[in-house]
Amino acid sequence: MKKKIVIALGGNALLQRAEVLSAENQQRSIQLFAQMAAELARDYQLVIVHGNGPQVGLLALQNAAYTQAPAWPLDILVAESQGMIGFAIAQELMPFTGGAPVTTLMTRVEVDPADAAFALPGKYIGPVYPPEQQAELEKRYGWQMKADGQYIRRVVASPTPLKIIDSEAICTLMEAGHTVICCGGGGIPVVKHTEGYQGVEAVIDKDLTAAVLAQSIDADHLLILTDADAVYENWGTPQARALRHVTVEELSPFAAPDGAMGPKAAAVMQFVKQTGNTAFIGALKDAPQILAGEKGTCVTR
Amino acid sequence: MKKKIVIALGGNALLQRAEVLSAENQQRSIQLFAQMAAELARDYQLVIVHGNGPQVGLLALQNAAYTQAPAWPLDILVAESQGMIGFAIAQELMPFTGGAPVTTLMTRVEVDPADAAFALPGKYIGPVYPPEQQAELEKRYGWQMKADGQYIRRVVASPTPLKIIDSEAICTLMEAGHTVICCGGGGIPVVKHTEGYQGVEAVIDKDLTAAVLAQSIDADHLLILTDADAVYENWGTPQARALRHVTVEELSPFAAPDGAMGPKAAAVMQFVKQTGNTAFIGALKDAPQILAGEKGTCVTR
Repeated sequence: MKKKIVIALGGNALLQRAEVLSAENQQRSIQLFAQMAAELARDYQLVIVHGNGPQVGLLALQNAAYTQAPAWPLDILVAESQGMIGFAIAQELMPFTGGAPVTTLMTRVEVDPADAAFALPGKYIGPVYPPEQQAELEKRYGWQMKADGQYIRRVVASPTPLKIIDSEAICTLMEAGHTVICCGGGGIPVVKHTEGYQGVEAVIDKDLTAAVLAQSIDADHLLILTDADAVYENWGTPQARALRHVTVEELSPFAAPDGAMGPKAAAVMQFVKQTGNTAFIGALKDAPQILAGEKGTCVTR
Repeated sequence: MKKKIVIALGGNALLQRAEVLSAENQQRSIQLFAQMAAELARDYQLVIVHGNGPQVGLLALQNAAYTQAPAWPLDILVAESQGMIGFAIAQELMPFTGGAPVTTLMTRVEVDPADAAFALPGKYIGPVYPPEQQAELEKRYGWQMKADGQYIRRVVASPTPLKIIDSEAICTLMEAGHTVICCGGGGIPVVKHTEGYQGVEAVIDKDLTAAVLAQSIDADHLLILTDADAVYENWGTPQARALRHVTVEELSPFAAPDGAMGPKAAAVMQFVKQTGNTAFIGALKDAPQILAGEKGTCVTR
């Protein structure tokens, strides 16, 4: 039996927020990912979770060209983004899996309707805009905008993921030997309802969802791939130093929600604490070396 | 073991092309479908295939509000529509399945790159427009437009489905007792490539795909749900009469590609001929009575 690894791949690693949000640009990043994933697939059974920040915001724009209907809600847009990105990843991965099926699952994730995040939208989605368009965008679409570097960008609520509704399907497919792409965009956010579940307007952090998923499917490892090549101490100073191997305790100062590594560090800590297994954070291009302990940040209990 | 039934549900039955393409309108139709499906689920294991005509055209409009990128290709838009509709169906079905999981699968379907349909776009997608906008829409989006009743509407290529790429995942989930939603919008159209498959610009007919699927998973029945309550002979004349029970041979005059029932009749004939099993065509609201032989059209070898 191969070891099971959950790989969380950033939406921004697939489509830079400041580049043109085109199918061609997304395809190029996914091809790079597929090459990395192919190397990992020799030793591991892969479960792939991808982000959707730029893409889900792009999907929200469809409303601008069809003003007869109110905007479609974010839960449905997240479901759309699971198709938009999951299909593209599956296509690029298939030639590398030696005939083993690659399957993309629509995945719902439960959140708490009382989550404080609903009152404080903080997750960036969609393309960036020049700051002078703020008033116009807020008025035209009813969006909440926030500064993102030199630009402004739409922000939405990002509640904490509690449970993967579709985990049984994921496990069934894994047992049958599938490479599974799931929980795209952090999963479709739903809340418990008298009968079943109801979608809510939010976009869940995909790293936190990947940690919940990795626990629920008994993964051996969690690997978070991002732009940065490691977690750094003294970042932005002459003393900046990449952390190669840290304990959960040593990583904890980096888990502040507003830090660049906040949700990633929090996700990794949660997985390692609960399972005692090893997790990794590093750059997409270094994926095989990260698992070999040569690059990135390795986190143990 | 319950009998296995593939249900094909029209995109227009979910969202009328001439009504406002809103999440609320889609939800209302899906709730009606869920009530019908709940009755069927007592006696059958359901596999649900849905159309996406109005929805995939709506998704194509996102480009109009984000002109920096070229339009995203139709294969990716079909994948988006599988999330958009599949998620909504899964949500409404869950309360009725008595705890059995409802799972939505991204599904790819192989077509022939030499299919004559690529040269003759004939499948309507998206909202309807007044005829006087034809020149403007063709120029602005590069779309091909065609009359649809009193309106005009975008048309795209609709090649014949050959093979369900993800059928192994569908079977694995069915064996584990899942209600499976798959092949949405007729499936994501792909063509064989030196290494794997490549997406193509098309929207496959979902009834024809449902027939291919029903054969590949050994379904006991194929049920096509639409607006009409049966196949009629002498339709539009005072001698109009609903066909209650016909053989494949008696149905064959109705399978002309340009007839209202064309792809539905062709799909049903293909399934019944190949398997010797029974298929049905009728209205969404009559689903349980159709299977009981009280309404709709029943087709046998």
